Amino acid sequence: MTDSILLSEINEQPAVLQRLLREREGTVRNVAGALASRGITSVVIAARGSSDNAARYAQYVLGARNGINVGLATPSLFTRYLTPPRLHGALVIGISQSGESPDLVAVVEEGRRQGCPTLAITNVGGSPITRVADHTLLLGAGTERSIAATKTYTAQLMTIAMLSAALGGDDRRWSELADVPDQVSEVLKLGEQARAAAEVLKDAGHGVMIGRGYNYATAFEVALKAKELAYVAVEPYSAADFQHGPIALVETGFAAAVVNVAGAVSEEVEALLRAMVERGARPAVLSNLSSSLSLAAAPLPLPEGLPEWLSPIAAVVPGQLLAFNLSRLRGFDPDQPRGLRKVTKTT
Amino acid sequence: MTDSILLSEINEQPAVLQRLLREREGTVRNVAGALASRGITSVVIAARGSSDNAARYAQYVLGARNGINVGLATPSLFTRYLTPPRLHGALVIGISQSGESPDLVAVVEEGRRQGCPTLAITNVGGSPITRVADHTLLLGAGTERSIAATKTYTAQLMTIAMLSAALGGDDRRWSELADVPDQVSEVLKLGEQARAAAEVLKDAGHGVMIGRGYNYATAFEVALKAKELAYVAVEPYSAADFQHGPIALVETGFAAAVVNVAGAVSEEVEALLRAMVERGARPAVLSNLSSSLSLAAAPLPLPEGLPEWLSPIAAVVPGQLLAFNLSRLRGFDPDQPRGLRKVTKTT
Repeated sequence: MTDSILLSEINEQPAVLQRLLREREGTVRNVAGALASRGITSVVIAARGSSDNAARYAQYVLGARNGINVGLATPSLFTRYLTPPRLHGALVIGISQSGESPDLVAVVEEGRRQGCPTLAITNVGGSPITRVADHTLLLGAGTERSIAATKTYTAQLMTIAMLSAALGGDDRRWSELADVPDQVSEVLKLGEQARAAAEVLKDAGHGVMIGRGYNYATAFEVALKAKELAYVAVEPYSAADFQHGPIALVETGFAAAVVNVAGAVSEEVEALLRAMVERGARPAVLSNLSSSLSLAAAPLPLPEGLPEWLSPIAAVVPGQLLAFNLSRLRGFDPDQPRGLRKVTKTT
Repeated sequence: MTDSILLSEINEQPAVLQRLLREREGTVRNVAGALASRGITSVVIAARGSSDNAARYAQYVLGARNGINVGLATPSLFTRYLTPPRLHGALVIGISQSGESPDLVAVVEEGRRQGCPTLAITNVGGSPITRVADHTLLLGAGTERSIAATKTYTAQLMTIAMLSAALGGDDRRWSELADVPDQVSEVLKLGEQARAAAEVLKDAGHGVMIGRGYNYATAFEVALKAKELAYVAVEPYSAADFQHGPIALVETGFAAAVVNVAGAVSEEVEALLRAMVERGARPAVLSNLSSSLSLAAAPLPLPEGLPEWLSPIAAVVPGQLLAFNLSRLRGFDPDQPRGLRKVTKTT
């Protein structure tokens, strides 16, 4: 099972995260200091694909831990309608694995033109997005050969979490960050459970992946992996939005997965999970709550004591393993997703 | 076919829009004047379900036509994590048909607490959200008896478009607005074509609905109607994001629909449409471009000369008719969506 490039990149994640913590803390603190000195009133993030899911995480981390209102940019206003909105000094962040997508570069460039502080988060030093941003935080994840992003996604989350900790000036957060690589190592042991979960879900052509709060991003990212690798049309939802209509979709045989980490939203997510099971869903459940895991047709236990704000870094990993197994069980090659390019240059 | 409450509400739309224009222009101009006098640096919108799709429209209209950066609120930061971000004088808008959802009320209330200007857009005068907002714009759509929102959705779009016109101070926009009710009357004649499109799509269990720019909102809203009424798991995408992974999903027999109105993004959307057809998709196409309609397995022609900024109001209507027909053809009752309540009180 290790003859896969994708799987080897999934398995690299603890080392990548460890290296980020060891080698980039100083840079992150310097960038945070420079940004704080200009005053951050709000943040606008431009990103697509997995990087857009990292941006969703940033909405919660920077919102809840730093009190910063974070919006996601609508790049077509910049590149198609040629009517970029006034950004009024917002910090403009571009997140891109390759640093190449012209529309994301255009948003950061416009931010700079308007005099806003700008930041690029990318895996490729010297890439176009770094040339238009005031500051760059490199992921240092090494070349990502797989088309499906895994190690660069968790490295993006870690970078955002480090930035939040540096902006917050609270050293306890750094000690929580230090525990993340071990948490990711622990969930990498869930290979067998992920395979069993893939067996449960493999015959469904479509489904949903539910999360809320910090792990709304996890729902989006796991759903994207399922689409890219296994061609299962999994749609992500927040637990709150799912009740506004789409719960009508739940039926027996429908693929359903739920991520529920103990914390501020877990009671609500569990109530929805219970309602879904009562309607006949047989869900995979990524959780560190025994009460949620007991509702699962396929449990994927997460470590106890995960700090909720950092939990999306470890929680996505069993989802990556699930999508990898789903791809193989459905007869595909996870290293060769059909019809995808690594660098998509939307304009 | 008119024995349906939903269909009668779909057919009411030209009258509702006409009434909004006739009766609310003064109020909208007054509210716009009051807001402009306080200076609008940015907008944060709290909304769920169909109202959230109206908020997506507001991102493009207020962004492109008024230069205002619009973000969508993450209500759980306000109600679950109890860490509302600093809103720095942003205009906070709550959009809610019923005006009752506690989490949306909480976002508007927090905006007011922080001294931000606040606005409620709702169909119910005196509802909770109106009691915490500085200003209210009522939709005046009459009671919406169907669980699936139709006339309140287009009334929300019209209200937002009127607000944009009033803030922009350009009277040509008002004359464009005056044409919308007739455009909606025209697309209401597409009942037979919508039925034919539903025949093409009826056996698919899942699919995608593509739009970009202004009609990104239309993609979301039509997908939501298909889920609510016909239990087809249709996932909305922007044409740009669809290339970042999910295009891998396209296969023969997969339900696909594309909205493409002549304008700044139509060339790009048509290129994607062509790529989808080459991969075997047999799409329904909502468009006023003959080149796009010629790629359709089921064409839904929109009026020529639709101003792109207002096109989502007319463009959604054939989508509503499509979802209605899809519901009936799949053996459901569009007036009785299973498991849904009209007012969902997320907290």
